[in-house]
Amino acid sequence: MSRVIDFYFDFISPYAFFSAMKIEEIAERYDAQVEWHAMLLGVSVKNVMGLKPPIETPLKGAYMISDFKRLSALYDVPLKLTDDNFVPKPLPPARAFCWVKGQAPEKAVTFAKAVYHEKWIDGHDISDPKILARQAVKVGLSGPDLLEALDGEQVKKSLKASVDRSLARGVFGAPTFIVDDEVIWGHDRIWMLEHWLEYGHW
Amino acid sequence: MSRVIDFYFDFISPYAFFSAMKIEEIAERYDAQVEWHAMLLGVSVKNVMGLKPPIETPLKGAYMISDFKRLSALYDVPLKLTDDNFVPKPLPPARAFCWVKGQAPEKAVTFAKAVYHEKWIDGHDISDPKILARQAVKVGLSGPDLLEALDGEQVKKSLKASVDRSLARGVFGAPTFIVDDEVIWGHDRIWMLEHWLEYGHW
Repeated sequence: MSRVIDFYFDFISPYAFFSAMKIEEIAERYDAQVEWHAMLLGVSVKNVMGLKPPIETPLKGAYMISDFKRLSALYDVPLKLTDDNFVPKPLPPARAFCWVKGQAPEKAVTFAKAVYHEKWIDGHDISDPKILARQAVKVGLSGPDLLEALDGEQVKKSLKASVDRSLARGVFGAPTFIVDDEVIWGHDRIWMLEHWLEYGHW
Repeated sequence: MSRVIDFYFDFISPYAFFSAMKIEEIAERYDAQVEWHAMLLGVSVKNVMGLKPPIETPLKGAYMISDFKRLSALYDVPLKLTDDNFVPKPLPPARAFCWVKGQAPEKAVTFAKAVYHEKWIDGHDISDPKILARQAVKVGLSGPDLLEALDGEQVKKSLKASVDRSLARGVFGAPTFIVDDEVIWGHDRIWMLEHWLEYGHW
């Protein structure tokens, strides 16, 4: 049985976006499976850690913008930063992901990557249910069903359970990787994930 | 004329310690000079960014402890973590560094590395003026002069000026490297510093 990398992400994070574009390829190289889990930075950063959003933090916020641009260049991954709608509302895309995962787990990764693409490469508002429905249709699910589900209690419970499980495992930032109970935080620690996959020790 | 890497550090940070052990060797490889600058995480994190100390932050604090241990193993650099005196008072060693730099700039790096060694390899309390005086003597300066200077106004002003300059350049964390006006934060971004030194672009 191949190993499992638990991958915790929030669609609002460009850092998680960079990892989302790479993680499947890395896992394949080490014969591992990736299990994608929605988490919410708003919950971990604000409610649990008691911090303000990093992007709104003096000095650090400005640094992050320049960091995003550099990493986009260094990774050769396009990244569209917009002034007017920089941070989308996190709940609609996270709930949509939970719904897709519930309906058809094998389509969840394709859906998640498409939503990341919509936001961070195309610059679209992934808080917009219509955009999420369009992506649901592309993976072969029903757009109207998604739109209906987004307002329902079930998907809210599903996301809340996902977020609660992430916190219980010590996940506070995105992206976070967990393999063999080793928690590794940050897209710039992918080298550490690869080290563990390769050697199984530090 | 060789390039200058401005290196901002706080003695209380194990991440800055790891960088302090490597930065001179990296600079040498790229024919660059390192200019060491004391900054204070207490000022940038608490006063400017309005955050609590990361090590006291729920989830993140515990993660950092495991991160320090892993990096110590991965870098093969010993790191002594103590329960009883984990975070030393930052002002005495930072002021001592400013005093040494003022007295004999060419001895400042040796002194700084020795102070880091005292704390993070030997586990000693670098808030203790006697320990700082011992290191001053080792680099050929007067222990009693350092002890007297630590209580004086001049070294306080000197450190405050150093901290103010770091903030003016956008430095909020330790370690931070600045080369050619490019601000690079974090010991785990040394690869980014090396990239810039090698290519001069992103």
